[in-house]
Amino acid sequence: MSDNIDTRRRWMARAALGLGVLLAHSRTATAQAPSPAPAAGKKKTVGVVLYPDFEVLDVFGPVEMWANTPDLKVIFVAQTAGPVRSAQGVSVVADHDFASAPPLDIVMTPGGVGTFAQLRNETFLQYLRDADRGAEFTTSVCTGSALLARAGLLKGRRATSNKKFFALAEQQGGGVTWVRHARWVEDGKYITSSGVSAGTDMALGVVARLHGKEAARTLARLLEYQWSEDPNNDPFAIG
Amino acid sequence: MSDNIDTRRRWMARAALGLGVLLAHSRTATAQAPSPAPAAGKKKTVGVVLYPDFEVLDVFGPVEMWANTPDLKVIFVAQTAGPVRSAQGVSVVADHDFASAPPLDIVMTPGGVGTFAQLRNETFLQYLRDADRGAEFTTSVCTGSALLARAGLLKGRRATSNKKFFALAEQQGGGVTWVRHARWVEDGKYITSSGVSAGTDMALGVVARLHGKEAARTLARLLEYQWSEDPNNDPFAIG
Repeated sequence: MSDNIDTRRRWMARAALGLGVLLAHSRTATAQAPSPAPAAGKKKTVGVVLYPDFEVLDVFGPVEMWANTPDLKVIFVAQTAGPVRSAQGVSVVADHDFASAPPLDIVMTPGGVGTFAQLRNETFLQYLRDADRGAEFTTSVCTGSALLARAGLLKGRRATSNKKFFALAEQQGGGVTWVRHARWVEDGKYITSSGVSAGTDMALGVVARLHGKEAARTLARLLEYQWSEDPNNDPFAIG
Repeated sequence: MSDNIDTRRRWMARAALGLGVLLAHSRTATAQAPSPAPAAGKKKTVGVVLYPDFEVLDVFGPVEMWANTPDLKVIFVAQTAGPVRSAQGVSVVADHDFASAPPLDIVMTPGGVGTFAQLRNETFLQYLRDADRGAEFTTSVCTGSALLARAGLLKGRRATSNKKFFALAEQQGGGVTWVRHARWVEDGKYITSSGVSAGTDMALGVVARLHGKEAARTLARLLEYQWSEDPNNDPFAIG
């Protein structure tokens, strides 16, 4: 077992090194960026707002990137705490219901076939509005942007959505300028991505906003992820 | 609301079209391939073998690809059924414990910092051996291949692992030829990928083995995923 213990020590040391690099980038970026630095030792809270039949990669691409960012902590929020079934059949656990969720620094709502039901769920939409109020960033993946639009949060903003269900987003009103050709769109604190896998690239874009682009690149490398880092480079654009 | 209902009908129609394309490819591929076609209407079972402190994207990149393949059904298996906490802090739900799990057609074990504890867990290793016996494919992501090696399943095989913790895999013995430069490695029914994000590319490689490369490309496109489809193209190789 001593071999394993040695390897584990090396793993921890290298992970710490990786995170050290990230934090060093972060300090540099913070010195230049307008975004307020978090209080020492205080993590920001990322809340993923789940609902039945969400799409799993919409959630876990971003979670992988954000939870591996040293000053972010990810929690799952849903209308009812406990298991939430995904569109892929497997379930995840919501840590909090809407009433018990702490204030969120970053809000994310995923897409998935369950989007349709939530467009008619005023409790869900009202939670998005409430959570958005104090958030530094409000984000979405895939058809999640239809929910943000329906909640009225994208009024006067540029945003994008899943290419194959673009009409769904467009039908939600709310005075949004929908961008068809984008991997993701940033308009102030509102950051929306196109379909499924695009969310992972968007999430690294948020890390870049917080800590600079080099920090996001370092994180992507650690996770062997080929980051498509230009939000306007959209190989899946149609029309 | 009628707009939403119309959009939902269009979504379903297009999704059905997408899956129809996939199945058409599948039939062509099945006619050429040695892999047995599943009985009509019978889905193959993909079992992801979870443990505490698994890495989330190791699991959900592949789950996204496999659960969206029409003839595959994904379940989560763990030593104890119920919530399993990931290395990223959020939890998922194991559908079955080892005793109640059905036979698996495809076995997948992820990586993550929790790998270390499972290397010493004979119950876990014995389940991998039992599940492997009837499986068409036995696969891993990241440090998951260290577990397959420790279980003795990779004897005489070529395999790969996370680049940053390659020594961990190499220390498990079991007569494995470890490949340092690979996005993923296929040796017969054993398919191992490198770190974290590489698992998503490996999963599409499995879809290609089952249904042909065009079906895998179609699936990737539907999910707006830029598939790195050459298993030997490894931008993260070191040494």
